[in-house]
Amino acid sequence: MRIARYESGGKISYGIVEGDSVTPIEGDLFGSKRPNGPAAPLSSVRLLAPVVPRMILATALNYPSHLGNFTASPRPELFVKGLNTLSNPGDDVIVPADSGRVDYEGEMVAVIGKRAQKVSVAEALDYVFGYTCGNDVSCRPWQRADMQWFRGKSCDGHGPIGPWIATADEFDPTNMELRTILNGKEVQHCNTGEMINSLAEIISFASQTCVLEPGDIIFSGTSGQPLQINPGDVVDVTIDGLGTLSNPIVADPLPSTWQDLRQDTRQLAGSR
Amino acid sequence: MRIARYESGGKISYGIVEGDSVTPIEGDLFGSKRPNGPAAPLSSVRLLAPVVPRMILATALNYPSHLGNFTASPRPELFVKGLNTLSNPGDDVIVPADSGRVDYEGEMVAVIGKRAQKVSVAEALDYVFGYTCGNDVSCRPWQRADMQWFRGKSCDGHGPIGPWIATADEFDPTNMELRTILNGKEVQHCNTGEMINSLAEIISFASQTCVLEPGDIIFSGTSGQPLQINPGDVVDVTIDGLGTLSNPIVADPLPSTWQDLRQDTRQLAGSR
Repeated sequence: MRIARYESGGKISYGIVEGDSVTPIEGDLFGSKRPNGPAAPLSSVRLLAPVVPRMILATALNYPSHLGNFTASPRPELFVKGLNTLSNPGDDVIVPADSGRVDYEGEMVAVIGKRAQKVSVAEALDYVFGYTCGNDVSCRPWQRADMQWFRGKSCDGHGPIGPWIATADEFDPTNMELRTILNGKEVQHCNTGEMINSLAEIISFASQTCVLEPGDIIFSGTSGQPLQINPGDVVDVTIDGLGTLSNPIVADPLPSTWQDLRQDTRQLAGSR
Repeated sequence: MRIARYESGGKISYGIVEGDSVTPIEGDLFGSKRPNGPAAPLSSVRLLAPVVPRMILATALNYPSHLGNFTASPRPELFVKGLNTLSNPGDDVIVPADSGRVDYEGEMVAVIGKRAQKVSVAEALDYVFGYTCGNDVSCRPWQRADMQWFRGKSCDGHGPIGPWIATADEFDPTNMELRTILNGKEVQHCNTGEMINSLAEIISFASQTCVLEPGDIIFSGTSGQPLQINPGDVVDVTIDGLGTLSNPIVADPLPSTWQDLRQDTRQLAGSR
C-alpha cells in the first residue's frame, strides 16, 4: 500500500495512492483505516511530506562507498535533524546565504509504525511502518567547521521526504535500489543491502536512547561522494518501484545577518 | 510575570504564578492572555516543563571555565536535542543502561516568544519570551565515543526545564546568577555574563539556520567541570530570584538490548 499526505482545496489529508489517483482515508494512520471520500487524480493534489514526525534521526557514514578516509563504526552513528528540516516533494531547497557549498544526500528513509523502546535487532523491523525517499541536504563547510552538525544538517527545509510511504510489506530494506538524479543524470546508485549498519541495527540502536514513536523517521545514510548542488539544479531521489522525490534548488532570498562581533577582539585558535 | 504549565485534576493548563499560588490563564501564551479561573495553591498542582517546544537547541563550550583543553569558538557551537529529552520538574532522570557515566549540566534556558528569522545580534533579545532553568544531562562516554551527540545529549528525559518561565522583562540575560546543587551542596555557580557567546549572539546565529518559533528553547551552556550523577542523587538547577528545577536521578529500569553483532566479524579501527 502507498500512503500519501497531501493538500487539496486547502485541506490536508492522508490517502491511499493507486495508479494515478489518491483516495482519502480516515482512522488511525498506523492502524485501522478506511476510505472516506472519492478518489482524486494525483495531478490535482499537492503532495506533502508523507508523515509528520516528532523525531528525525539520520545516520552518518553508513555505506562503504561514503566512508572516504573514515573507518566503519561498530555501531550506527546517529544524529538528530531538527523538525525544521522537514519539507515536501517539490519544495524549494535553499542554498543558505554564506554556506559555501551544499550537497545532496539521497537516502532511504524508514517510518516507524509502533512505539519502539529498546527493541532487539531481531525484532526491530516489526516496528517499521514503511519506507520513503529522503534528501539529507548537507552544508558541507559548516558540517566540517562546527563541533556538531546543526548548521551542517539542520537548515530549514533540508530534509525533504516523499513522495509517499510504501508500507513495510512491499519492500525488503536490505534490497532496495536507491538512486539520486541531478538535473536528469544519475549521480548516486546503491543497493540498501550495502549498508554498514542495517536498518534493523539502526532501529535497535536508536531505540536504546530514544523511544521511537509512530511517525518518527530515520534517514539511513548515503552512498558515494555526493556532489555540490546549486540554484537552478533539480535533485531527484528515487527508490526503484517506490517513487521519486524531486526538489528544485534555489538561492537564499535573505542575506545572513550574522557577523562575528568578536573576531577582532578575542584570541581565537585555529584548531579545537 | 512567572508563567507555569501544570497539571491539576487531569487537566493541563498554563497559569501565572504569584507567591505560593497559580492562576490559570486563557488566550495566547505569547500574546494577549487573561485569568480564567480561581487561583490554586502551587502545592496542589504538578508542575510541567513550562513550554512545549518544536525545537530544542543547546550550546556547547560557552563558559571559559568549561573549556578545558578547548579554545573559545568565534561563533556559538550549537546542537539539537531531540524533543524526547523534554521533561518536567521532579521527573526522574534516568542513568541509561550501559552509559557508564552521566553528568549534570545546569544551564539558563531562553524561551523564544516571537518568530525569529535571521535576526541581528542587536535585535535578538526582542525575540525572547522569558527564562527558565534547565539541565542538559550528558552521557559523557557516549558523547566522546560518537561522531555526533545523539546518545550523549538526547536520551529520553535528559533535558528537564522549569520550574516556570520568568518573562524577559524581569531578568537581564547577561547578569543572572546560576547555580547547580547536587544533594544539597553547590557544585556549579556562575554568572550568565561569563558566557563566551552571549544569548543575543546565540539567538542571532541560530536564527540564520533555523527560523525560531514561539516556544522554542535554547540551552545557553554550562560552566566549570560537571560531576557524575548517580541513582539516588538529586540535582537542583537554580537561578537566583527565579526559582529551582529539581530532579531525582534513578537507575534505568530496562536493560539494554543492543549488542554489537559485528564486533567480532568486521575490521574496526580505533580512531575515526
